[in-house]
Amino acid sequence: MSQRGRFISLEGGEGAGKSTLFGSLRDYFQQRGVQLLQVREPGGTPLGEAIRSLVLDPAHAAISAESELLLMFASRAQLVREHIRPALEAGQWVLCDRYVDASYAYQGGGRGQPIERIAELERWACDGVMPDLTLLLDLPVSTGRARAAGRGVADRIETEADAFFERVRRVYRDRAQAEPQRFRVIDASLPADQVLQAAIAATAHLFEAS
Amino acid sequence: MSQRGRFISLEGGEGAGKSTLFGSLRDYFQQRGVQLLQVREPGGTPLGEAIRSLVLDPAHAAISAESELLLMFASRAQLVREHIRPALEAGQWVLCDRYVDASYAYQGGGRGQPIERIAELERWACDGVMPDLTLLLDLPVSTGRARAAGRGVADRIETEADAFFERVRRVYRDRAQAEPQRFRVIDASLPADQVLQAAIAATAHLFEAS
Repeated sequence: MSQRGRFISLEGGEGAGKSTLFGSLRDYFQQRGVQLLQVREPGGTPLGEAIRSLVLDPAHAAISAESELLLMFASRAQLVREHIRPALEAGQWVLCDRYVDASYAYQGGGRGQPIERIAELERWACDGVMPDLTLLLDLPVSTGRARAAGRGVADRIETEADAFFERVRRVYRDRAQAEPQRFRVIDASLPADQVLQAAIAATAHLFEAS
Repeated sequence: MSQRGRFISLEGGEGAGKSTLFGSLRDYFQQRGVQLLQVREPGGTPLGEAIRSLVLDPAHAAISAESELLLMFASRAQLVREHIRPALEAGQWVLCDRYVDASYAYQGGGRGQPIERIAELERWACDGVMPDLTLLLDLPVSTGRARAAGRGVADRIETEADAFFERVRRVYRDRAQAEPQRFRVIDASLPADQVLQAAIAATAHLFEAS
């Protein structure tokens, strides 16, 4: 039987360079011959992509914090069952642009939803599927937002105030500190090639047989 | 200050005559001069209607039971905060085509999601907003499905097997039995005018000052 695949999630605030790293890491894994499933959150399934359109649409400004949290987990529960778990069981690796830590950071830190509520949803919606490695691209909020500002129209979450993103960053850093064996924090103010080298170094142990 | 409004939910399986009763009850309340908010679940808000399209679309056949449950509560949390609670506080009455009992019946009984999970979601997503009266239109599954079959294309949930709807019915009846002060069970095999008279009789106490 094939060995179970590895699950890597990328996390970070706005403008941290997550998309750039995602593309470079994908190329790196493919060069190494890794069978890779690439997904993103919210999204990654037909249902999840429809949910993504809903939650990021600035027209849904009135969406409640509770509904936002439930929608993020609806997308995640589907992604786990439809793609992530089957891929890992088939020996594929999974590279996911945001996963459950993003709910703690954005819906918990950002929107003030209680941590216990998120933990309870994680318990049954993620059903034990957790990343082997979470790469957190960390950056001061002002730096990240200045970078992101060049991108054109902001989505519903990108239009939040700085204080929102400060809370997001704090929760991400706290989680990384609490789970050092899973998280690797990367200084996202470094040039992209150095960020990639740090990420590659962090994945080295995943290639060892489990 | 105006008196708080009354909240009435309609529940029942396929073909029970819920839509017919909804229309007749609305007319009755309006004739009595009741300021009435009419809503439905899933739906009732721009977000909720978008969710409704997702969960009822037969194209989303692969949707997991967990995601379905989360989506129903995402719609409900939004409806409570955007419409139901403000209407009740302004003294309006609310007539809702399905509410939280439907999640116990369909996602719990039908799909097998644990009752405690649904109760926990209810606790924070509904935030204490519960109907003053729930009218359950009860009907044998075979009768209801024969009626519903005449309607044309079935949605994603209507295509389930009889056993699914038997479980739905059982949960509805169990809940009615457990909360007799809130529920009124109406024999939906009666002619529509008798169903309406039974429903009107059940609402009489709501007109008394609280």
